Amino acid sequence: MGSVFGTLFRVSTWGESHGLSVGVVVDGCPARLPLSVEDIQKELDRRRPGQSDIVTPRKEADKVEILSGVYNGMTLGTPIAMEVRNTDHRPSAYDNVRDVFRPSHADYTYTAKYGIRAVEGGGRSSARETIARVAAGAIARKVLAAVAGVRIVAYVERVHDIAMPELESAPAEADIEATAVRCPHAETAARMIERIKQVRSEGDSVGGIVRCHLQNVPVGLGEPVFDRLEADLAKAMLSIPASKGFEFGSGFAGTYLKGSEHNDVFISRDGQIHTATNRSGGVQGGISNGEEIVFRVGFKPTATIIQNQQTVDAQGNATELLAKGRHDPCVLPRAVPIVESMAALVLVEHLMRQKAQSGLM
Amino acid sequence: MGSVFGTLFRVSTWGESHGLSVGVVVDGCPARLPLSVEDIQKELDRRRPGQSDIVTPRKEADKVEILSGVYNGMTLGTPIAMEVRNTDHRPSAYDNVRDVFRPSHADYTYTAKYGIRAVEGGGRSSARETIARVAAGAIARKVLAAVAGVRIVAYVERVHDIAMPELESAPAEADIEATAVRCPHAETAARMIERIKQVRSEGDSVGGIVRCHLQNVPVGLGEPVFDRLEADLAKAMLSIPASKGFEFGSGFAGTYLKGSEHNDVFISRDGQIHTATNRSGGVQGGISNGEEIVFRVGFKPTATIIQNQQTVDAQGNATELLAKGRHDPCVLPRAVPIVESMAALVLVEHLMRQKAQSGLM
Amino acid sequence: MGSVFGTLFRVSTWGESHGLSVGVVVDGCPARLPLSVEDIQKELDRRRPGQSDIVTPRKEADKVEILSGVYNGMTLGTPIAMEVRNTDHRPSAYDNVRDVFRPSHADYTYTAKYGIRAVEGGGRSSARETIARVAAGAIARKVLAAVAGVRIVAYVERVHDIAMPELESAPAEADIEATAVRCPHAETAARMIERIKQVRSEGDSVGGIVRCHLQNVPVGLGEPVFDRLEADLAKAMLSIPASKGFEFGSGFAGTYLKGSEHNDVFISRDGQIHTATNRSGGVQGGISNGEEIVFRVGFKPTATIIQNQQTVDAQGNATELLAKGRHDPCVLPRAVPIVESMAALVLVEHLMRQKAQSGLM
Amino acid sequence: MGSVFGTLFRVSTWGESHGLSVGVVVDGCPARLPLSVEDIQKELDRRRPGQSDIVTPRKEADKVEILSGVYNGMTLGTPIAMEVRNTDHRPSAYDNVRDVFRPSHADYTYTAKYGIRAVEGGGRSSARETIARVAAGAIARKVLAAVAGVRIVAYVERVHDIAMPELESAPAEADIEATAVRCPHAETAARMIERIKQVRSEGDSVGGIVRCHLQNVPVGLGEPVFDRLEADLAKAMLSIPASKGFEFGSGFAGTYLKGSEHNDVFISRDGQIHTATNRSGGVQGGISNGEEIVFRVGFKPTATIIQNQQTVDAQGNATELLAKGRHDPCVLPRAVPIVESMAALVLVEHLMRQKAQSGLM
Repeated sequence: MGSVFGTLFRVSTWGESHGLSVGVVVDGCPARLPLSVEDIQKELDRRRPGQSDIVTPRKEADKVEILSGVYNGMTLGTPIAMEVRNTDHRPSAYDNVRDVFRPSHADYTYTAKYGIRAVEGGGRSSARETIARVAAGAIARKVLAAVAGVRIVAYVERVHDIAMPELESAPAEADIEATAVRCPHAETAARMIERIKQVRSEGDSVGGIVRCHLQNVPVGLGEPVFDRLEADLAKAMLSIPASKGFEFGSGFAGTYLKGSEHNDVFISRDGQIHTATNRSGGVQGGISNGEEIVFRVGFKPTATIIQNQQTVDAQGNATELLAKGRHDPCVLPRAVPIVESMAALVLVEHLMRQKAQSGLM
Repeated sequence: MGSVFGTLFRVSTWGESHGLSVGVVVDGCPARLPLSVEDIQKELDRRRPGQSDIVTPRKEADKVEILSGVYNGMTLGTPIAMEVRNTDHRPSAYDNVRDVFRPSHADYTYTAKYGIRAVEGGGRSSARETIARVAAGAIARKVLAAVAGVRIVAYVERVHDIAMPELESAPAEADIEATAVRCPHAETAARMIERIKQVRSEGDSVGGIVRCHLQNVPVGLGEPVFDRLEADLAKAMLSIPASKGFEFGSGFAGTYLKGSEHNDVFISRDGQIHTATNRSGGVQGGISNGEEIVFRVGFKPTATIIQNQQTVDAQGNATELLAKGRHDPCVLPRAVPIVESMAALVLVEHLMRQKAQSGLM
Repeated sequence: MGSVFGTLFRVSTWGESHGLSVGVVVDGCPARLPLSVEDIQKELDRRRPGQSDIVTPRKEADKVEILSGVYNGMTLGTPIAMEVRNTDHRPSAYDNVRDVFRPSHADYTYTAKYGIRAVEGGGRSSARETIARVAAGAIARKVLAAVAGVRIVAYVERVHDIAMPELESAPAEADIEATAVRCPHAETAARMIERIKQVRSEGDSVGGIVRCHLQNVPVGLGEPVFDRLEADLAKAMLSIPASKGFEFGSGFAGTYLKGSEHNDVFISRDGQIHTATNRSGGVQGGISNGEEIVFRVGFKPTATIIQNQQTVDAQGNATELLAKGRHDPCVLPRAVPIVESMAALVLVEHLMRQKAQSGLM
Repeated sequence: MGSVFGTLFRVSTWGESHGLSVGVVVDGCPARLPLSVEDIQKELDRRRPGQSDIVTPRKEADKVEILSGVYNGMTLGTPIAMEVRNTDHRPSAYDNVRDVFRPSHADYTYTAKYGIRAVEGGGRSSARETIARVAAGAIARKVLAAVAGVRIVAYVERVHDIAMPELESAPAEADIEATAVRCPHAETAARMIERIKQVRSEGDSVGGIVRCHLQNVPVGLGEPVFDRLEADLAKAMLSIPASKGFEFGSGFAGTYLKGSEHNDVFISRDGQIHTATNRSGGVQGGISNGEEIVFRVGFKPTATIIQNQQTVDAQGNATELLAKGRHDPCVLPRAVPIVESMAALVLVEHLMRQKAQSGLM
């Protein structure tokens, strides 16, 4: 009942890890947006398994098909459905967890909630569902770029305890994509990759932090008091598998400051009102203020580890589990396009809401 | 357009700081729940201005009236409207900000978005709107207690850099309410109060952290993949004025652990499946697992400070501002019932969704 | 759970017949719309009990108060709450139905659904809830008039078997308001009034038909395939108490025609595309085509009659009932502003949706 | 933006007439419902083109594939996606309407709204989108049958001016399916078929009425004041292409009765409360009362006729059009499963809402 995101730019997703396909319907996309399979595929390729030697080796080309809503290379304004068929099924890899709950996975809660679960690859709880997010996000990004020149840039800021220096503003995409770990600071990236390989060799896993910058966001997006822009971003980010926390602007660190240290004074620059600093993170009173929107998302270490773990079976009997199946030792590199996609979905929704209400008077 | 929260237990709020009233309609509350004005009032009193010498001295009794939906002390199943009339208006206190944007307030963004703003007390962006949240939350809490014995306990864990020792589980309500700052650790509470008084005497302000525990939450609440329980909690918390971040379970600190250190192994206890540790924070795969749900919310220092600040007027001209008006030097003590209320709204919504889908087969 | 109407122009209503008040929150109204209490009151006065000698004599001034969302005579863009306090309570008139179900009323179904009901005046099922619709509709009408010059005109076309001649297009408001029955054809109106007085004298009631014209509706409103403009109008009309049917354009009569007789051929007029006839009723493929939108709503005879009726009590025992309480012998005259209000809510919602999607490219 | 139906049992549809596929995602279906491709296919076969010699000869097997949400023959509780690939494309049949608006079709309004339209077969406005409705409806029907033994029976009551005798209650499915026109009265059915063949031979088309009975609907479904059961049924029916009107219970005919003739008195039968008559049509106060729910839907004559028609092109120039392409001379026979499907979607949604709210106390 929770696989729909958004109200005006409505995204409805489907698919289990080892089912026939994963896909999404996007209802509400403006008409006459130029859109091609390549626009979607290039983002899916950034999320794809097997893209480097630090991610899961599952072999999926993740080739997307646009089923509807595009006509002669332009959107029709009616629903756009997109589908990726699953190909690399290895159900036998999950025989040993059919009746056993993997620690810190969703096996137990899905079973408790639904009374049934698709065992292979975690079924619906697999990160394969994020294909749908990235496909829909690719369209949202095109809309945002076309309408307002919005730029969405995420990257890996920290892996385990290896952190890059904090940046003032968004780095270049090329610097992010330059390394398999999607950290734009080359020297740090190298150390991150080394760490990921090391924990993988130990059958272990690590987490970290993705940081995201939203540039050229028009002033006025966000609908107080509940649908504040940061609130919808928080929901979007916490809906990503493995995420554990969200902070924007000065975030948790800002709670150590006094008001006199934290306030962003207003200034005029080039005839426009700006803030001299940006501890507000681009959002004030729940509404974008035209500054760069900045937020961080924390991701836990991957739950799948290749070590013996204690657990119970469906009857509650204690047992031991040694995981098989392919997985990422660190989700961060592939989380980057997912974070960007979810941010895009939030922004386009709010852009449309703002247009709906303000466009009338 | 964003003043409605929830789908099944739907809360629609209204009111500006210095308008006629602040209120809320709750649509979807189950019928035959015993409900009295006192049930609502006792929670509003915890949020009320003037309740202690470390909060704003604005004089508002915040007496609530139930306008509909209750009949002979029982809910009817139809909308429950509740209203608090504003009484202590002091519009003259805002004459100096009529044409000037207060730093890190919503003055600028509201004006940019709507082309108009209610100046006095920040209008709709005032924390007075949270009256509606607490009133609705009081009903949600009654439902949750009646249906499942759910207990919701929040408290102030840190003010500025003064933190209490981390608790394993929820403290007693009496310990929280024992001090004006709502920190259950008496010795820390005393230091927090001292710090708040000190910054107030300097015309300054401080922020901090509220921690919240949800106990006896039934297994199975949360609707993947988007309406995960933690995602909706994140949205709810980031919709509270002055909040800057949200983390649950191991949170950001957990991103420093390896998978082998972070995973919660399953065990059987009293014939039920539990986790030996609770770094998952009571939610796995977006669904409650029956353990205590634990999360933290960071609040920034109050934007209103009694110091000269640089800013601009509506035309972008640089000017200086010395704030007047009554305000809290630290929002944390009064944020506690608001955090609890928003958590209650999220839980009751998910309880109803779970009942809708699972109740059929 | 069903007292909210609309998504972008969201209306949340409350109130029982003999409760403290009836009211509504409108969330999503554009900012900077001039709005006064008089704008609302003048529409409420058209719905008011006691306005003539053919409607219920219940004495209610129905004076509305605007609680929020308006500032210096302009809307703020934030929720507008409006309230009418009930004054003329006569609970004793309902003592005899406390434990008995009135035929063709909602007494039985409310009790079966909720396990409780507000007895006096039918509680929530009373037509008093339509105050909220008319108050919200008054705002919607102002928006529509300001943005697009939309004109919404309903009138009583038939009472019992007394019908006025069919009009080609909308009549003048003055002609409608000229008689108590709101039929613009004076001679027919006189006969309708006579009939209503006659059935009232017999303790009986009659129904009939309201017809509604929507003029100057912009081309392009309506969202296929489910949220077609006529589908949302149908829902809106069937949500009005006592309504039994809806038809638009050629309606049920059109089902007797052949395609060659029914199709509306396109022509050019004044450089714009029009249809030569309007059997489509202004909507094609679920989207407005710029012609006048025309529809009819059928209303049943009032369920309350002053005659002995067989029924059962809550335990299912057969009993007799002689109704007391004040009521309308014919709901049609007061239904006119309600039909108009609901049409306005549908149109403004679709105007905003259209703006949201089309405003981006 | 309007291709989503329902809130709890949420249906999101896609597809153009000559696009790659037509499909639907159903989000919210209860888990552990036995579900097979055959369950869906058998309903699609009743809607299929080419099923008889009085419907469109377009050759489509309409073979459905279940893409997700079903595991070992049981629903998972997560989204169920279903897809039908289009095969019989004949785009050349639409070359003559590429720049011309077909009378009483959606060509003009789609173009005006979106600035673009998929020409072939009417694109999204084609009745092919109803495949998605029937596929989703098939699941809803299984849920309703399993949970409450609900029976949904629609049939063709009138074609053009040929009407069958009015039935007191729902006929047998076998009688309905016995003839190509889906009228359970054999003698009338024969005349209807003859009439349809005759108008087709004239290049013309006819409309008529579908009547629907809902049996064993639990008492208590419907959410006043806006989401009344009949209001949601009205919206559902008016969202079906070519529908022009909706009435339930006594309908428009009931508006000719007096209250004393119209009221349904309550009686006890077998220890349960019933009404002696059913002019209420099974719904009182917006809530089901346990009696049979009865309603009628009027459908206009098919807009496509094989006769010369006047129209204009996109520039507004007058022109003549002689339609090609395959079509139904009368939509009624194939509308029957669509009406049933939409009714099922409304009922299951309300069943879930009722369970959500009432299941808590």
